[in-house]
Order: sequence, then structure tokens, then C-alpha cells
Amino acid sequence: MPSIELLSVGTELLLGQLVDTNSAYVAKSLANCGIDVYATHAVGDNRQRIAAAMRAALERADGLISTGGLGPTIDDLTKEAVCDALDCDTELHEASLRDMEEQFRRVGRAMQENNRKQAQVPRGSIVLPNDNGTAPGFIALRSDGKFIASMPGVPHEMKPMLHDQLLPWLRQRFGVTDAIYTRVLHTISIAESEIDHRIDDLFRTLENPKIAVLAHDYRCDVKIMAKAASQERAMALIAPVEGQVQERLSGHVYARDDVTLPGAIHELLQGAGQTIAVAESCTGGSIAAELTSVAGSSKSFMGGVVAYDNSVKQSILGVQSETLERFGAVSEETAKEMAQGVRARVRSDIGMATTGIAGPSGGSPDKPVGLVWLAVANAGGARAIRLNFSGDRAAIQRRATVAALGYLWRFLQ
Amino acid sequence: MPSIELLSVGTELLLGQLVDTNSAYVAKSLANCGIDVYATHAVGDNRQRIAAAMRAALERADGLISTGGLGPTIDDLTKEAVCDALDCDTELHEASLRDMEEQFRRVGRAMQENNRKQAQVPRGSIVLPNDNGTAPGFIALRSDGKFIASMPGVPHEMKPMLHDQLLPWLRQRFGVTDAIYTRVLHTISIAESEIDHRIDDLFRTLENPKIAVLAHDYRCDVKIMAKAASQERAMALIAPVEGQVQERLSGHVYARDDVTLPGAIHELLQGAGQTIAVAESCTGGSIAAELTSVAGSSKSFMGGVVAYDNSVKQSILGVQSETLERFGAVSEETAKEMAQGVRARVRSDIGMATTGIAGPSGGSPDKPVGLVWLAVANAGGARAIRLNFSGDRAAIQRRATVAALGYLWRFLQ
Repeated sequence: MPSIELLSVGTELLLGQLVDTNSAYVAKSLANCGIDVYATHAVGDNRQRIAAAMRAALERADGLISTGGLGPTIDDLTKEAVCDALDCDTELHEASLRDMEEQFRRVGRAMQENNRKQAQVPRGSIVLPNDNGTAPGFIALRSDGKFIASMPGVPHEMKPMLHDQLLPWLRQRFGVTDAIYTRVLHTISIAESEIDHRIDDLFRTLENPKIAVLAHDYRCDVKIMAKAASQERAMALIAPVEGQVQERLSGHVYARDDVTLPGAIHELLQGAGQTIAVAESCTGGSIAAELTSVAGSSKSFMGGVVAYDNSVKQSILGVQSETLERFGAVSEETAKEMAQGVRARVRSDIGMATTGIAGPSGGSPDKPVGLVWLAVANAGGARAIRLNFSGDRAAIQRRATVAALGYLWRFLQ
Repeated sequence: MPSIELLSVGTELLLGQLVDTNSAYVAKSLANCGIDVYATHAVGDNRQRIAAAMRAALERADGLISTGGLGPTIDDLTKEAVCDALDCDTELHEASLRDMEEQFRRVGRAMQENNRKQAQVPRGSIVLPNDNGTAPGFIALRSDGKFIASMPGVPHEMKPMLHDQLLPWLRQRFGVTDAIYTRVLHTISIAESEIDHRIDDLFRTLENPKIAVLAHDYRCDVKIMAKAASQERAMALIAPVEGQVQERLSGHVYARDDVTLPGAIHELLQGAGQTIAVAESCTGGSIAAELTSVAGSSKSFMGGVVAYDNSVKQSILGVQSETLERFGAVSEETAKEMAQGVRARVRSDIGMATTGIAGPSGGSPDKPVGLVWLAVANAGGARAIRLNFSGDRAAIQRRATVAALGYLWRFLQ
């Protein structure tokens, strides 16, 4: 099994001004190819220390992947350190220089001498062209076959270089033919423990594909991960398992892979040619913000009312004053009247409403902080559910928003 | 100058399942005390590799701070590795055991044998009690004075242990009397380059306190950082500089330190005994969500209308159909009528409105994607501004929301 170590270069990492997200990203990508990461390191913009970290890593591992320190400034010393660590010098990579000159010409800026430095690579190394920036990456080999691969630290330059160039090279070098492909099923309104219970046998017996459950705020993802030589073969392994999981979690899987909950709701609404309006109290506009985050949402989302003050519940939504007096603002009756009211007021097909106590104050023994009523109404009438959320104000608002979207999705099903 | 290295322990870090935020947090806290971090590392739950990383770090640095691997399970091996690295054994820390027994008794759960393991510490080490969990941390000293300090990996256990116990110990050990104290001034509606221009001389000449400018989406923070032996002395250094910065950026500094922009808006509203309502089109409920994120916001926020469909702009907000026909939904006139309309409809003192094109479609040469009109109205009438935002749909919505809150804050001033 090949072993790799990772090195992130940049003084800002050692000052805590920047969190090193590159290491986790590279590590995950390697893990998906079955390549183990033994350790990760971060050092500052110091040539000796970078070189020492590289030498030490190559004593333990088959190769080192570094990110950062390939820029044009005097602080960028990764390339020099690679040469120190491997005892070699640099050479000019003509194609990279031409690419760079072309890029500068395109944006009409003059290329400086320090940019030319970026076209230098350790002698004899494999160059990884940078399609999203100026500094090329490279793979520098030592005579014993161990290597240092260096990529830029800017994530949008590093990620495509990793996937399109470095990973294929690593897979070939280490004879890794399989990779891990993942299908994600997004579920709502079902607890992690209940999912575990329903798919426990698959979870325990399956080896390829494997299943994992990840809990988020009031929703869970079921990941089905297959190891195969191609996406097509992986999907052939995944399909029957996905069918079983879909069946066992029927009515709870709202989307696959990159589709969001608001996106799934708009798909259902637009498929049925229906429109929606929302009336929010405790969620304060968050449901409307989620629904309007989707491009093209104006086809099915008509509008919303944030009815924070009770006078707004009455004047705009038409909630009866006797309902507020008898049952209170946080009640099944008020929630239903809000949903029906916003639907009538906006003239949408569906109305959705939330009313609750987000805290930190305003709770009572009878109606504690975290109590939320959700209601949905259509031409046939209204229905509501009562939920209790834990956490601080922000957590209650966030969880109530996800729960409301989930309730709405299940209603539309 | 003392030098420290950091080690994060956990296989999930090497699989990329978790981003190591602890390292950046500890590094920043040490930097604020003037203690240099030379390198950071992450290794998996492997006793030999943890111990090897510790030994190697102590060859280079004065001390190592590790996080993670102190839990009760068989995967938690940091303590054993410390003993390997320092060639010592463990001893039972009676006080920690009693604390732990007390914690289990309180929650009514039985303490397992593997929990007892957590009360073991490297012999002779300084114990760092854990006020927020079961595993205590410790500082294990080597005969030459170098040390390994180990803390739990759970951030809410690690952070107070670092600040209340480890940092004071490090400051004393290294004779560090000064620390860096920071005052943050939050600004709005002023570009980073304009701030630079106005405080350039302070920026260039000041040494203690130092000034830094950080740009966020449509707002900037000015940080004034003083190195001093106490918070009181630091604030005495900061005060005159803060006064100068406040004066030069007059009308743009909406808050200090932890106060948010919505928080500053509610402070102004409640100070003036005024209420507000918002009418949103392109921001889709985000302004209402921001304003209701503040505890106690119901005192000044009455409600909002998300007027996505033009029919809602007319029916609820009372925008004239001829205004929509003649000037369009995204226009100064519509924005003003929306602000006045929501104010009248909700009976609030202030009305705020947004209308724009969030994209990706819906733009025209005349009214491109990113065009947003903001309006504010009170009893005296309405005013509006036209802004253009770049970025994708999410970025335009986010930037328009911050800009709207900034415009509102400046209006209330």
C-alpha cells in the first residue's frame, strides 16, 4: 500500500490566520483512490524548514505532496526547498513561460521578472500545467523513486490540478485501478437511529458498496460508496442497493447528490404547476430566503409575510383576534390561520406557516423556548404539527427552517 | 524566543473527514502571546506514529502541544504515546477520577472501566482539569525542560483549557508578560481602499498598537492590536488611536468587537423608540432573517413582506400598477413605493425595501444581473440608491443583504 505525506506551506497557517482546508481536501481525494495519507504537516515560508520537513517526510513515506509557496513573491520558497531536499537545481519550462506570457497579454498587464521565476521547475521534473493561474505545479523524482509533488495553495488552482493531473499520475504509478464513487441520498423527517434500524442489515453485511449515515440538523444523508474501476461500474454496484435503501426509507428521500431541499420542493411545485407563499413568525424570513436561493424559484414562489408582531398576523394574514386571545400566537390554530391567510392573501396554491418561540426569552412552562408549530394549507384545508427544538436562538431558527421545508416537501409528495 | 510545534491526533484528519481547525485556533492564541509556532502536524490513531512525531518535534522545538486522542476508547492513544516519547509510565490522578465519578453520578450513568483510563496521566505531569468533559489534559516534562502538553480534541473542551490553564503556564514558563489585545471597529459603506487612504499614515507609522484592515462582503473591519501586560494597559494604548480612526471613518463605524450589524440597527431603533418593517424582492427574506437573528428584535422589528411576484407588490404593498408598467419592478420608483407601502401596511415607523435582479437569468443590457435598488422610508418620505453587485446568485443576494443593512444603519444615524 503506497504511503503519502502532505505538507502545507505558509506562515499564515502558523499564525492561525488561515485554516488549512487543503490538507483535508487532498487527503479525502487520495483516500477515495485507496492511497493512504500517513501524516500532514504545515510549515512557514522558511526555505530551511520547508526543506527539512520534506527530507523527513521522504524518510517515512513514498512521496510528499505540498501545497502553497509557488507564487512570484520573495516569500514563495517551495520550489527552492524542493531543490534543496532533492539536491538538484531548476530549469526553465518553456511551455509554462509561453502560457504565462499569453495570460498576461490577454489581461493587458506587463509581466514582471518575478513572474518568470514561476516558469522555473526542479530539473527533470514532470510539469503540471496550471489552467487556473500562473504558477505550474510539478512532480520532482528522486533517484530511488520517491517524489515530491508541489501544487499551488490557492484552492481553485489546486483542486483541478489534483484531479486532472496528479491523481491520474499517482494511480498509474501505484497501479491503483479502483476509485471510490459515492451516491448520496438526502433524507428528511426521519431520525438517524430510525435509518440505522431500517438498513441495519445492509449496513452490517455490505462490503462493496458500503453504506454510511451522516446526521445534519434535522436531516440525514445516506452515502452509498462503491469501489470500482469506473463510474459506470460503480453505479452498477450502487443501483440495487440504492433501490433497497429508497424502498426502506420511502417517503423520506427528497433528493440525490447535489440537489438541495429547496430545489426538490421547487421541482415538485413546478412539476404540479403549483405556487406557494409562506407566513413566518419564529423563522423570521429564513424559509423564504431558502426557497428564493434556488435559481428559477420565481416560477413557483410568489411571496411571503414575516408576521413578527401580532398586529401583522391580523392585518395582513387575517388571523382572528379571538384566535390569538384564546389560543395564543404560538398555537395550532394560529399556525393554520397564518397558512390559510397567506395563501388567500397572495393567491397561491399552497400556504406554509411557522409560529414558535426562538428564545432566549418568551418561554413559559406551558410553551417553552423551542416550541414551534408548522402548518401547511391548500384548497382542501390546513394541517399542522407541533415540534420542540433544543439549542440557542440561532439553532432553533435553523432547525425550525429545515423541519418546515421537510414538512412542506412531505406534504407535496 | 520560545518555539512550539502542534500535533493533531486523529485518523479522521488523514481521511479528510474532518478539517483541522484546532491547529489554527491554538496557533492564533499562541501568536497573541508572542509564542512562535514552528510547525503543525497531524497523525492518525497509531501509537508508534504519534510517539515518533512527538520525539521528532522535541528535537526541533522547546515544546509540543497535542490535541485529540485522550478519549476513553481503544483508538485514543495520545497518552500512551507521550509515555513512549518521554520514556515514562502513567499514574492515577485521584482528583480527576473523583471529578469523573461525580460527573457520571450527576447524569445518572454508570462509569465504565475505560472511563477510569482517562484519569491516568503520565507520571509526574501537571494535570489540566477538564471543566467541560471527562478527559483531563496534562503537561508532561522531560528532564531537559522540554515538554509535551496534551489537550482533548473537542473544541469546546480544548479552548477553555488552553486559555485558562495552558496559556498562563506557557506565559510564566517563557517569561512572556505581554499579550496582544485587539479592538475591532466594524465599518460599512466604505471601500477598503478608501479606508487605507484615510488611515494610511497611522497604518505606516504606528508600531504599538498596530492597525490592520480586513475586507468582508461589502463591509470592512479595522483591527487595532496592542501588545501590553494587561487588558487595561492595552486599552490605554488603543484608546487614542481608536479615537482617531473613529473620527476619520466617521459615519461608517457601526459597532465594536462582538456587536453585529443587525444588533447595531436594533440598538439605534430601540434607542429612538422606533419600529421597522421590510419589503424584500431580490433578497428574498434574508434581511428579515438577519434582523430577527438578534435576541429581543421583536421590540423593534414588526414584520416583513417578501414580494417576489409583482402581484404581491401590488396587493399587499400597494405598489401602483402604472409604476410597475412604466418603470419596471426593478426601479427607484418601485423600491420607494415598496418601502412606503410596507411601512403603511405594517404601521411601522420605518420601511425598508429591496428590488433587483439576483440572476442567473432575468437580466437585460439596461438592467443587468446584479442591479439592486434599495429604499428606506419614514414619515418624511422615501429615498433610494442604485447598486450593482457582481458574483453568482448567492453572492448577489448576500451582498445586497449586507448593503441594505448598511444603508439602513446610515439612514438611522
